[in-house]
Amino acid sequence: MRQSQLFTHTRREAPRDEASKNAQLLIRAGYIHKEMAGVYSFLPLGWRVLENIMRIIREEMNAIGGQEVHLSALQSRALWEQTDRWSDEKVDIWFKTTLAAGGEVGLAPTHEEPITAIMREHIASYRDLPQLPYQIQLKFRNELRARSGLMRGREFFMKDMYTFARTEKEHEELYERVKQAYFTIFRRLGLGDRTYLTFASGGIFSRYSHEFQTVADIGEDTIYLDKTKGIAVNKEVLEESVLADLGLEQDKLEEVRAVEVGNIFSLGTRFSKALGCVFKDAEGKERHPIMGCYGIGPNRLMGLIAELFADERGLVWPKTVAPYSAHIVALSDEPAVKNAAEKVYQDLQQANIEVCYDDRDGVSAGEKLSDADLLGIPLQLRVGMKSLKESAVDVFDRATGEERRVPLTQISETVKSAI
Amino acid sequence: MRQSQLFTHTRREAPRDEASKNAQLLIRAGYIHKEMAGVYSFLPLGWRVLENIMRIIREEMNAIGGQEVHLSALQSRALWEQTDRWSDEKVDIWFKTTLAAGGEVGLAPTHEEPITAIMREHIASYRDLPQLPYQIQLKFRNELRARSGLMRGREFFMKDMYTFARTEKEHEELYERVKQAYFTIFRRLGLGDRTYLTFASGGIFSRYSHEFQTVADIGEDTIYLDKTKGIAVNKEVLEESVLADLGLEQDKLEEVRAVEVGNIFSLGTRFSKALGCVFKDAEGKERHPIMGCYGIGPNRLMGLIAELFADERGLVWPKTVAPYSAHIVALSDEPAVKNAAEKVYQDLQQANIEVCYDDRDGVSAGEKLSDADLLGIPLQLRVGMKSLKESAVDVFDRATGEERRVPLTQISETVKSAI
Repeated sequence: MRQSQLFTHTRREAPRDEASKNAQLLIRAGYIHKEMAGVYSFLPLGWRVLENIMRIIREEMNAIGGQEVHLSALQSRALWEQTDRWSDEKVDIWFKTTLAAGGEVGLAPTHEEPITAIMREHIASYRDLPQLPYQIQLKFRNELRARSGLMRGREFFMKDMYTFARTEKEHEELYERVKQAYFTIFRRLGLGDRTYLTFASGGIFSRYSHEFQTVADIGEDTIYLDKTKGIAVNKEVLEESVLADLGLEQDKLEEVRAVEVGNIFSLGTRFSKALGCVFKDAEGKERHPIMGCYGIGPNRLMGLIAELFADERGLVWPKTVAPYSAHIVALSDEPAVKNAAEKVYQDLQQANIEVCYDDRDGVSAGEKLSDADLLGIPLQLRVGMKSLKESAVDVFDRATGEERRVPLTQISETVKSAI
Repeated sequence: MRQSQLFTHTRREAPRDEASKNAQLLIRAGYIHKEMAGVYSFLPLGWRVLENIMRIIREEMNAIGGQEVHLSALQSRALWEQTDRWSDEKVDIWFKTTLAAGGEVGLAPTHEEPITAIMREHIASYRDLPQLPYQIQLKFRNELRARSGLMRGREFFMKDMYTFARTEKEHEELYERVKQAYFTIFRRLGLGDRTYLTFASGGIFSRYSHEFQTVADIGEDTIYLDKTKGIAVNKEVLEESVLADLGLEQDKLEEVRAVEVGNIFSLGTRFSKALGCVFKDAEGKERHPIMGCYGIGPNRLMGLIAELFADERGLVWPKTVAPYSAHIVALSDEPAVKNAAEKVYQDLQQANIEVCYDDRDGVSAGEKLSDADLLGIPLQLRVGMKSLKESAVDVFDRATGEERRVPLTQISETVKSAI
């Protein structure tokens, strides 16, 4: 992408009504646009980041046997009444609207009901199980407050997987399989070393649910962490009996702030029973599949990654989610510089490296570098007269601040080995 | 994909409340699920088809300089009041809902307002233009009737591109560029030979808008077609002066039914003026960009393709949008057959061919072939004892009905050259 053609521009100030640091930064860098509190649009660079996050999640869901679907946002009242989750007293974040043809419909805040209704039509025998359908689709939640930027939205993408198992044992195997996939996802997103499996309250069908909590000062949650064991407990289950159960000792726990980046939950037969989803077991007896649900919010992850890694100069993207791998900055408009930068741009594209090229005329080197720092692409390839005299380019690592001079002939390899 | 693991199953009957042929077929084949009239969910095979259609559209939009964005579904009342399109009298297909924090919001039926408001913040100079942002995002339209399956939905994906030009001449160039990209898209989707540029009424800023109409008996529209010239006029502009303008003669026109698969529209400065989107021209004078909008509905295309190419046995997908390129059918459970089919499955995957393998045990050859015909994957690779005796597989072309025996050693090449 030639930056001269990119329609977004950086700006010095975020809108005054934007309270969250992640949205402030992302708006200043031209990644997102605020439509209203808790509702953001994604501009070209921001959409690339979000798509990278969603691609990583998708790859790991497919790797464990997930089958991707796309469920509608509009939801029928009748369906949700069957599980007693239609009324605003039971679910207090519904957006509801009215069909011109008559009748109320809702905007899906989650999708247990529709996926179970679909499975009801397709599952008949124990041979049809287990199943792990998932989707990455918009969710709508009518939050009273939404001041955390991308971290808590009224409209946002959610990856939600649902598992359908024949037996409790099979359910536990699936649950463990998804749990491991989640660790892989957070590792690939650059959050592996600070994300902990956290025990939270479980509901009717299991003693615990599990949250994945990323330790961060900006977190809304408080968790109690045993770093040696690599697990944590949520405040809500911080009780003696729970600690004993998990083999934890109160005085070895560290109280830290954290952001919930994923949660996984055993649903038992709550939904399959209410919606009449059954299968015949090997003996021909009708049973209800045992379900689990597994959520990850790509928007929240993007907001967290933006805020967590940012420094005073701007965004600092991990390589796996950055909108581009390399950012070529032509430090002046002199023909020798422009020609060399153009050559590097062509070479990197030829090598299938995603690259952004700041080819803007009449913009000072200082302004370009300050924009590049704000955009946060991992590697800056700074092309100027000084390095060109040595037939080289200065390769600047946005995260570490290290810079080294690399011969023009070795740029592609250098970038390839760094990403 | 092993069919034994695919969670969807085919069914003999479509739901009684489903009136449209495309949805009936797609439900029977397990591609989609009906949530309510005009609202469908996409199951694994259906989602693959829809994603193929969206990928082709995306590639062609990127090829002409499109920059992908993702605009929110929730829309603020204040924004749409600025263009006088908030009231239900002006736009009669709004879904509206209420924020818990107070205030009405709408579900975007289209996105001219938000994209113009975004451009207002990013465009300053003539150097920032032209621009061609686009997205593929859900649209919500509160249609009074929705009986056409995927062809007219209350919730559906739309690819909408918007162009922003400096001058009328530049606008015309962009308009022509998108028009050509649309022809490419319809050609790639297998609709090229029956899709015609159709002149329709233009609104304030230009004499005509253009529709892309695919000739099909199931169409809701009537168009008047000059096959020699390759263009058509919509009923609404079938007037002497228009025909003279276009060099058409009434008696050479053929009246045909057609489905509108795309439309492109000159918006002039209607939105840039109302929303205060300006740029400074080379003389420093403030001007409003001249806009165009360009829509294609992937859901409608999927419904049309499903219905148009289907035969009495089921779906017949064009190669470019089929959920898989090849469908291996093991005609019996005999070990020799299963082993050979498994080997073909591995070989094709190795060759990076998207392949579905009907590996189900205890299902008769007849039932498997009837399912394969219903699913409509372009090539069936029928593996049975008879052909295996010649170390071969019968390759059946779903569209033409032709079958030929291909040696096992040549399967990958044969499939590759056919897709």
